[in-house]
Amino acid sequence: MATEWDTHTALTTTGDGLFGADLDPGWTVGGGVNGGYLLGVVGKAIAEAVPAKPHPLAVSAHYLSAARPGPAQVSTRVLREGGSVATVSAELGQAGTTRISALATYGDLCSMPDDVATTAEPPALPPLEECVPGSLAPEETRRVAPVMDRFDMRFDPACVGWTMGAPSGRGHIQAWFRMADGHDVDPVGLLMVCDALPPVTFDLGRPGWAPTLELTVHVRAVPAPGWLRVSHRTRNVAGGMFEEDCEVWDSTRRLVAQSRQLAIQPRG
Amino acid sequence: MATEWDTHTALTTTGDGLFGADLDPGWTVGGGVNGGYLLGVVGKAIAEAVPAKPHPLAVSAHYLSAARPGPAQVSTRVLREGGSVATVSAELGQAGTTRISALATYGDLCSMPDDVATTAEPPALPPLEECVPGSLAPEETRRVAPVMDRFDMRFDPACVGWTMGAPSGRGHIQAWFRMADGHDVDPVGLLMVCDALPPVTFDLGRPGWAPTLELTVHVRAVPAPGWLRVSHRTRNVAGGMFEEDCEVWDSTRRLVAQSRQLAIQPRG
Repeated sequence: MATEWDTHTALTTTGDGLFGADLDPGWTVGGGVNGGYLLGVVGKAIAEAVPAKPHPLAVSAHYLSAARPGPAQVSTRVLREGGSVATVSAELGQAGTTRISALATYGDLCSMPDDVATTAEPPALPPLEECVPGSLAPEETRRVAPVMDRFDMRFDPACVGWTMGAPSGRGHIQAWFRMADGHDVDPVGLLMVCDALPPVTFDLGRPGWAPTLELTVHVRAVPAPGWLRVSHRTRNVAGGMFEEDCEVWDSTRRLVAQSRQLAIQPRG
Repeated sequence: MATEWDTHTALTTTGDGLFGADLDPGWTVGGGVNGGYLLGVVGKAIAEAVPAKPHPLAVSAHYLSAARPGPAQVSTRVLREGGSVATVSAELGQAGTTRISALATYGDLCSMPDDVATTAEPPALPPLEECVPGSLAPEETRRVAPVMDRFDMRFDPACVGWTMGAPSGRGHIQAWFRMADGHDVDPVGLLMVCDALPPVTFDLGRPGWAPTLELTVHVRAVPAPGWLRVSHRTRNVAGGMFEEDCEVWDSTRRLVAQSRQLAIQPRG
């Protein structure tokens, strides 16, 4: 049975590394299409271009212009395919205008060593039932950001002051995360999860759109089934820009993705 | 007067976004050419390709094969040039084999707002004279890594246990940094600085070469003249890979660059 994610990222192919997609209006925020969804579509095309290397290890995307719902084209080019990894460049365009240009290194996470020697700790989140569901957002917010309906997010109550005009000022938002239809996220889906939460600048009292210049995701393991823990942080808001660091942890408390994006500060 | 950096990154151009470089043997480690130097050469070519956008804001590089000293070609392609930023793709190759593929967003850091609202703190380094100069490294080490002679690095004594067989195990190396000839680093040069220190895995008792899969650098400000503070950390050593986060702070205690790379764990 196709999940919502499968349906919304379905690709046609015309061969030669070219793919067609239909960007679903359910992924918009203020009319533009969510950057994580776009990266997921690109990521899926790359996986089809190098079938022996099914998983993204590192994907870097530069955002050139805002995408709109509707038809899109993804062109992929395999730069090198070796024994364990492949490097692929990809562009997502609409009517001849490039939206995203990406470079990716793909491999097979299942064939990697299973050592874990990490000093990182998963986000300390209260139990699910003590967290704040995204579905409590005002009707007006959800009309502007239909993308919210794609997810089941349960926010740490300590990180939602900004929804009531009282941002913590720490630059930190974290939540439990799963898809609204309850299906599990695969490694390509993690590219999308890294841009799913609201901009971390909301927690600094800077609401408004924060356009991404660049987003790089490292996928570090195949996520186990179940709820994910997602954390967004920023430390350096300066020069009209800020970085947003995201971590995604799976239900076995393994760090499955790390990402950083450089974004333009919202005005006001 | 040309600095050593200027000389080693000098480019010829044949027009159409194509550049020629001559990779200097002084930047090798174990025979391969340092990845930060390669990125600096690529970064300089991109700056020449979009002269109205002189500074890297975000540069993502995927490393395809090990470069050798000698002639190299850099091809650049401007994907989009807008009012404030330009996005450029670039490849560095040798004799038809791609070494690095990169995507970059360039702009003019001098025209950005000068706000700074950061919660990040510069690395706590003892005074210069209490730190350990890289020049104290054994003759054998410096023969294997001529790149060390390009820099004047003064390591935090708390982070050099690995040189005496006693790594701290924290995954942290930090140092004062400047070029060996004392010249100041410009924004393109920061691309190189982010890969200049020894691999952070040395501090985990894992000596040996750690090949970079992907390196993304965000340049956040034009560095002020004087010594830089550079910090490398890793938190997630897992699945045969590790991330290396680098921060570069200038003499005014401003965070001028942030980078992350995904690298393969050294064996043994």
